[in-house]
Amino acid sequence: MNSQELSKLLNKHNNIYILTHTLPDGDAIGSALAWGTVLRHLGKKVRIFCPGVIPRKYNFLPGASEFEHIFPPAPSPGIVFVLDCGDLERLDYMSQGVGEIENIVNIDHHATNLLFGDFNIVDTSAAATGEIIYRLIIEQELPLDYEASICLYVAIASDTGSFKYGNTTAQTLRITATLLEKGVDPALVSQKIFDEYPQSTIHLLREALTTLQIDETFPIAWMNLHEDTLDTYGAKAEELEGFVNYAKNIYGVEIGIFFYHTLKGETKVGFRSKSVDVSSIAGLFGGGGHPRAAGCTIKYQEGPDAIRLVIEAVRKTLQEKKPNTTVKCE
Amino acid sequence: MNSQELSKLLNKHNNIYILTHTLPDGDAIGSALAWGTVLRHLGKKVRIFCPGVIPRKYNFLPGASEFEHIFPPAPSPGIVFVLDCGDLERLDYMSQGVGEIENIVNIDHHATNLLFGDFNIVDTSAAATGEIIYRLIIEQELPLDYEASICLYVAIASDTGSFKYGNTTAQTLRITATLLEKGVDPALVSQKIFDEYPQSTIHLLREALTTLQIDETFPIAWMNLHEDTLDTYGAKAEELEGFVNYAKNIYGVEIGIFFYHTLKGETKVGFRSKSVDVSSIAGLFGGGGHPRAAGCTIKYQEGPDAIRLVIEAVRKTLQEKKPNTTVKCE
Repeated sequence: MNSQELSKLLNKHNNIYILTHTLPDGDAIGSALAWGTVLRHLGKKVRIFCPGVIPRKYNFLPGASEFEHIFPPAPSPGIVFVLDCGDLERLDYMSQGVGEIENIVNIDHHATNLLFGDFNIVDTSAAATGEIIYRLIIEQELPLDYEASICLYVAIASDTGSFKYGNTTAQTLRITATLLEKGVDPALVSQKIFDEYPQSTIHLLREALTTLQIDETFPIAWMNLHEDTLDTYGAKAEELEGFVNYAKNIYGVEIGIFFYHTLKGETKVGFRSKSVDVSSIAGLFGGGGHPRAAGCTIKYQEGPDAIRLVIEAVRKTLQEKKPNTTVKCE
Repeated sequence: MNSQELSKLLNKHNNIYILTHTLPDGDAIGSALAWGTVLRHLGKKVRIFCPGVIPRKYNFLPGASEFEHIFPPAPSPGIVFVLDCGDLERLDYMSQGVGEIENIVNIDHHATNLLFGDFNIVDTSAAATGEIIYRLIIEQELPLDYEASICLYVAIASDTGSFKYGNTTAQTLRITATLLEKGVDPALVSQKIFDEYPQSTIHLLREALTTLQIDETFPIAWMNLHEDTLDTYGAKAEELEGFVNYAKNIYGVEIGIFFYHTLKGETKVGFRSKSVDVSSIAGLFGGGGHPRAAGCTIKYQEGPDAIRLVIEAVRKTLQEKKPNTTVKCE
């Protein structure tokens, strides 16, 4: 879909829905709110939907309380923008309702995007969907105010890990520079989205670090926690985000793994690597993800068995990749 | 000192020393190496000095092994550039030797800079000394190659905490965009300077988290470690960098404090705050720093007494600031 086609579609319809994915992250939330803000400035009637709870750390964003969770409401809108979703399944229980609406505009940056929209604006070179939304705002000559800017900042900073990840480009930084000129305070926002957590997170981290194991032969380190422990501290599973990096970041470790044993008897596995493709390992267990960040769920196994199963598979993968590789961890 | 004066000075002299401060950080190291690289391209004979050990994580930088630690060598140079130092004392045992050299060019961004140079290029609006070095390179039309770019990236990313701190400006991001266009890989560099540590760091962190205390009345959280514990794990004091943030980052906490008890019987205290000025608190004990990041050393006190003394002073400061303020930590 090009700029003119989008302009035409926007001119034609006044009622607009914006949807984003389950387990919403900063890019999903920030992009949806920014796009909603600028479309409202255009005089559109906009409703924003998400099939998941908005994590507390994003509550400070203008409009964060406006996310609706019941879908589909009547009447149908003229356009539905689906943001940051590689496929409609990412909309969880909202996917069916969306399928019945005309004029689905799919705006996304995932390489795996299925081009499911009636119109597709997919740019896999963008670090975040927020970067695409920024470009649309500029192309459509829509007003980029402080509210939209802070939402876009959160979108882009989140998906680049504060500009640390490999998806960060010169373009990403120049867009972000413009957002700072609109008044966004990087310190204030970063504190909120990256560096603030409940006290329970500290207890969970301490417990997780206590379980750290480093393989004697292969450059693998792992930790695990049981949902029981979360309950003890009144913690939520979302607090575990990033724990896997503590294993991966150790000198000499190539793959860090975090095992989360749920009360339902499943083990959720998060992989992070420095250079090895872990999405293929996650794929062995029906999971997937990116080359350096992937995940899977192991069912029908006791916790320790799930760990053994996965570690054995990781060892095998590393063995096949580089025979006789041993890396000493310090 | 303006651009023409610098140009004239550079044209006149061929032997150049570059010095940076004790306990060198990414800005000190990156700025010195970048400036050295471009001056060598100009045909200058450059030697680079630092009165402290270069932390291992910066070893990957081009030229990192060239830092000299014995000073002053004979003969004297034509120019000595002193980088990232608010005053000559930051040069530790090298300060005296420098005082005897002509043509000291002081390049710095600290608000406290004493303008100690024969020439001063001090810009307190720059996020890092690396940002000033970048501007000098552009102004002097010196060649900015990949080697200098990766050093400047490290300088700027370090001093802005990967673009999270309040000193990050639109200009900072635009300069960094140019560095990425020179081939700098933000993921590779960030992993090395922010996200890699020895296994001992994990053990220290676990031990430190175990000591976490949160005040019942005031929004203060603190942790402590004894040098004994570092010895147990063969760890270095530099591994404690950033630990204080785990206390500060808790919801509802305003001031995080880290106490490090040394074998010499001193307690080194690090303060971090979300908005309160902690440099004034550190000042009460002969320390100092920035409003949100400060430190001091308590002598002649047993560890627990040092903690009591400091916490009491922090409580008093908060009490005076906002009577009857209590914040519940979760």
